[in-house]
Amino acid sequence: MQISTLRRQCRPFAAAKQRVHRSPVIPSAAVPATSASTQVFDYTQIEIETKPGIALFDITPQIRQRVQQLGVTEGFVNVLSRHTTTAVAINEYETRLLDDVRQFLRKLAPASDPYLHNDLHLREAPADWPGGWEAWAAQEPENAHSHLLSMLLGNSETVPVSKGQLCIGTWQSVMLVELDGPRKRTVGIQVVGTTQQQQQQQQQ
Amino acid sequence: MQISTLRRQCRPFAAAKQRVHRSPVIPSAAVPATSASTQVFDYTQIEIETKPGIALFDITPQIRQRVQQLGVTEGFVNVLSRHTTTAVAINEYETRLLDDVRQFLRKLAPASDPYLHNDLHLREAPADWPGGWEAWAAQEPENAHSHLLSMLLGNSETVPVSKGQLCIGTWQSVMLVELDGPRKRTVGIQVVGTTQQQQQQQQQ
Amino acid sequence: MQISTLRRQCRPFAAAKQRVHRSPVIPSAAVPATSASTQVFDYTQIEIETKPGIALFDITPQIRQRVQQLGVTEGFVNVLSRHTTTAVAINEYETRLLDDVRQFLRKLAPASDPYLHNDLHLREAPADWPGGWEAWAAQEPENAHSHLLSMLLGNSETVPVSKGQLCIGTWQSVMLVELDGPRKRTVGIQVVGTTQQQQQQQQQ
Repeated sequence: MQISTLRRQCRPFAAAKQRVHRSPVIPSAAVPATSASTQVFDYTQIEIETKPGIALFDITPQIRQRVQQLGVTEGFVNVLSRHTTTAVAINEYETRLLDDVRQFLRKLAPASDPYLHNDLHLREAPADWPGGWEAWAAQEPENAHSHLLSMLLGNSETVPVSKGQLCIGTWQSVMLVELDGPRKRTVGIQVVGTTQQQQQQQQQ
Repeated sequence: MQISTLRRQCRPFAAAKQRVHRSPVIPSAAVPATSASTQVFDYTQIEIETKPGIALFDITPQIRQRVQQLGVTEGFVNVLSRHTTTAVAINEYETRLLDDVRQFLRKLAPASDPYLHNDLHLREAPADWPGGWEAWAAQEPENAHSHLLSMLLGNSETVPVSKGQLCIGTWQSVMLVELDGPRKRTVGIQVVGTTQQQQQQQQQ
Repeated sequence: MQISTLRRQCRPFAAAKQRVHRSPVIPSAAVPATSASTQVFDYTQIEIETKPGIALFDITPQIRQRVQQLGVTEGFVNVLSRHTTTAVAINEYETRLLDDVRQFLRKLAPASDPYLHNDLHLREAPADWPGGWEAWAAQEPENAHSHLLSMLLGNSETVPVSKGQLCIGTWQSVMLVELDGPRKRTVGIQVVGTTQQQQQQQQQ
């Protein structure tokens, strides 16, 4: 085993192999040259209308765009799946692989297996649910398998940003994994870091 | 697929459906109005006495309380499982679902399967173990399955904080997953961010 | 269930049981006493030549060394697996357990199962691949199972640093998980935080 540590910049997107699903990098010249040094804690949410069952959505372009808009040069992005039947994953956004993922997850936690969470008649509705238990049960999906897969896949990923670039690898995409669609979903995107101006100030 | 980006605040806890297991949000007025701007890096540990086998513990109230105590308005929380047979997960803390999780994990990596790590007679004790190999083997559990599940579930999650609120969704809880209890466990909770005072200063 | 919150420092490495695979902690005296307060966003990549199939590599010494070199006292480390067939995990780096992990993962997503991603004749090469489809297909591995395992294990972990120490537990190591080796791989290591000087300044 050989491990060597080397300091170097993120592979710039321009040098990476072209991927159809990636948006181009907008030069960070959008940041006014006169702005004071700023530490950024920017929280936004991406809204996605998902497809039925298990479905994956590449949200890398939105993340990259937000980093560029803010002009963050050194920092990172916290990505949070905000639902109990979704997850966040990083992998290759290749059509046939996405179908493999769907099949694999369906086998790993089959929807048809017996789950206690799906016995709606044995569960209580939240105390303040409008219309009471009947109304709650009428809209409550039998989706225990989706919860289990959400826990396995995980709900947060953190991606470093360096020299203004997301530090993911050439073939990596950040994805929302819908495990019980279709629904309207939100993903939390938090960009933390410093702008180019602040970095320059420190170097002077 | 429709993806739209919108900037908005975290859903405030008050607006979320009432959950019994969540502690109320303490207004951040606890922060003295005269305090100087502060960047917070606060590391604490939560101590939990766990239950036998696989067991899940909602630690969201403790995390939320710490964020409020510190008066952090924009930032995030790093949650770290500090043991090799525990994990951190985010999902719905619903009684029957928790039993589904236990059953699912027990099937996924059965304790009764053969594992090399459980052949204590073929392993060495740490060089400085008091009492030597005998004493080490006497206390060493056969828990390879717990290690495997810990790796699958993952050991860290990062949750953004915005406008003083944890940005998890309405039904989400942050949980310690005990995979080889009962034990006394610690979870690392790191709150990073800025206080309201600093935010206000920047806006002036 | 008993949960108590306590504020305390990370268990210092010196107090932990001796582990052969861990490099000693270098005192942060390397930081010049005269340096101004600094907020650190340091991104580096570790390069690893991996072994065939599934293989795990302890990268904790490199992470700990980088934290020490930078003199970061309060902060955290973002660790990112930068490939679609690798992952990052935290667990015990024990020889026989590593073999259990290999066996477990091979059973969980068998390489011999049918996967759509492995039908190379039905996939297109990237538009600009040198030599076109033939050249692409000749080098493209049939590794759908590795992608699936990467998604399950997860691609990022965040580890807090407090009082200059990595806050992982005594038996925890941060590992790169190779799922389709051998290859030359890079792991992104981002150290974020403040130096001792800045901490002291705040306290004065």
